[in-house]
Amino acid sequence: MPFQRLVLAAAVGLPLLAAPALAADPVKYARYSDGGATAYGIVEGDVIHKLSGSPFEEPERTGQRISVDDVDLLPPTDASKVFAVGMNFASHFASAPDAPPPLFLKLPTSLTGHQADIMVPPDAQNLHFEGELVIVIGERAKEVSVDDASHYIFGVTAGNDLTERSWQGRDLQWMRAKASDGFGPVGPYLVTGLDPNNLLLTTRLNDEIVQQESTANMIHSPARVVSYLSHYFTLEPGDLIFMGTPGRTRALADGDVVTVTVDGVGTLSNRIRWPEAQ
Amino acid sequence: MPFQRLVLAAAVGLPLLAAPALAADPVKYARYSDGGATAYGIVEGDVIHKLSGSPFEEPERTGQRISVDDVDLLPPTDASKVFAVGMNFASHFASAPDAPPPLFLKLPTSLTGHQADIMVPPDAQNLHFEGELVIVIGERAKEVSVDDASHYIFGVTAGNDLTERSWQGRDLQWMRAKASDGFGPVGPYLVTGLDPNNLLLTTRLNDEIVQQESTANMIHSPARVVSYLSHYFTLEPGDLIFMGTPGRTRALADGDVVTVTVDGVGTLSNRIRWPEAQ
Repeated sequence: MPFQRLVLAAAVGLPLLAAPALAADPVKYARYSDGGATAYGIVEGDVIHKLSGSPFEEPERTGQRISVDDVDLLPPTDASKVFAVGMNFASHFASAPDAPPPLFLKLPTSLTGHQADIMVPPDAQNLHFEGELVIVIGERAKEVSVDDASHYIFGVTAGNDLTERSWQGRDLQWMRAKASDGFGPVGPYLVTGLDPNNLLLTTRLNDEIVQQESTANMIHSPARVVSYLSHYFTLEPGDLIFMGTPGRTRALADGDVVTVTVDGVGTLSNRIRWPEAQ
Repeated sequence: MPFQRLVLAAAVGLPLLAAPALAADPVKYARYSDGGATAYGIVEGDVIHKLSGSPFEEPERTGQRISVDDVDLLPPTDASKVFAVGMNFASHFASAPDAPPPLFLKLPTSLTGHQADIMVPPDAQNLHFEGELVIVIGERAKEVSVDDASHYIFGVTAGNDLTERSWQGRDLQWMRAKASDGFGPVGPYLVTGLDPNNLLLTTRLNDEIVQQESTANMIHSPARVVSYLSHYFTLEPGDLIFMGTPGRTRALADGDVVTVTVDGVGTLSNRIRWPEAQ
């Protein structure tokens, strides 16, 4: 139960105990590969409790458990569309707050999970990290208002909007620069019950903090972006929206480890592997 | 069996009759909705012979038949990625033949089938048709050479790369201009055994011919585009590549019917529905 509705329920004296238990508490969902089979689970401590289906299908616990250390974490959803907002922090590049949010696309094949190596295309020359909050759509959305948009946001995860700057400047569109295989690490978990408008986002390059800012500084809010997108694109459960990067970015090299931490979500970590440099 | 291999087989005296029967003859595949269920079939005359699965899974005929008039034709594949080539005919805009092909993305949710109405976003102002040949990937492809690329092209269909010109000029990227819901009609059928480099492409607006040119004039060939894409993106069965539009395009109005004919494939027809104009 979103916080606003909880307050409303309390204010009008509705029986809170009859509401879905603990729905306002954060829940961590993992998507993982267990011996080649893809499964979903709820993460409590270091244990994954396997679910009967995806988080969007009202799954039940199967009773099976496995340690997070014994699985390969996958991108937390099987996304069919991956949107991204550009110029959403004044500390990076500012877009006009009253104009439509500037948008571009990544691809499902760009996505990779926590601790997966990023195999950089050999001819890439100037690859930059971009640590970001990522919004996860939970329900089909078409032409929804800003006020209603939060209802369609299931939860959040962390992402690295990897970008090849020379291609970004040179190509007709940003497709190759933004959507090449591996350019979209996301994870480690999909977490519900957090306020996406007030989360601390921290990017580290080999343990050095290189980006740190609150999502309170986003120019275009998740609700506004979801509403805008839904007027042109049918949003579907599992679709992702990268919410933009703050501050400065830097060129990466073979062996670099980039981590993106979103408070309450956890830390996404990936090593860059650059065939040329090996 | 592609024509080149057929010739090779004949030249070296291989037993042609033992090869997959008639594999070099065009086969028309349909994807359709039959009472709400999605199915694939082979089209012969006006009859669809239902298959046990998608064309990419070596399906068998189930023995069930249905008239093409009794089904709703869907986009001929369940595409996870939709690529498009820009500036691929000198008669429209020429790109440099020796440079990488200029590319952009459409979305699976852009796709719609033959005879589906296109529901235009109400705030669209300058929507243009772009009749195109569309290439269909049949097999997972990663880092394939130009010489090998044809092996991964399963067949072709016709498409309309609908484009909102004012958004195309104004937005940060072409996403909304090119990938809004309904902006990618494709069909009617997926056809194998045709040479994609020598097909006559004809676009009609309300029965008037408004584009007509051979795909022999494409600047970047399908094999070259598939090879290039595969160096950055893992191509998957059913993925589509819109190959670019020839000649001039025009603004559309509510009620307009656009048809795109690719010789050997058939005619894709869609009516434009514009909420503002009603």
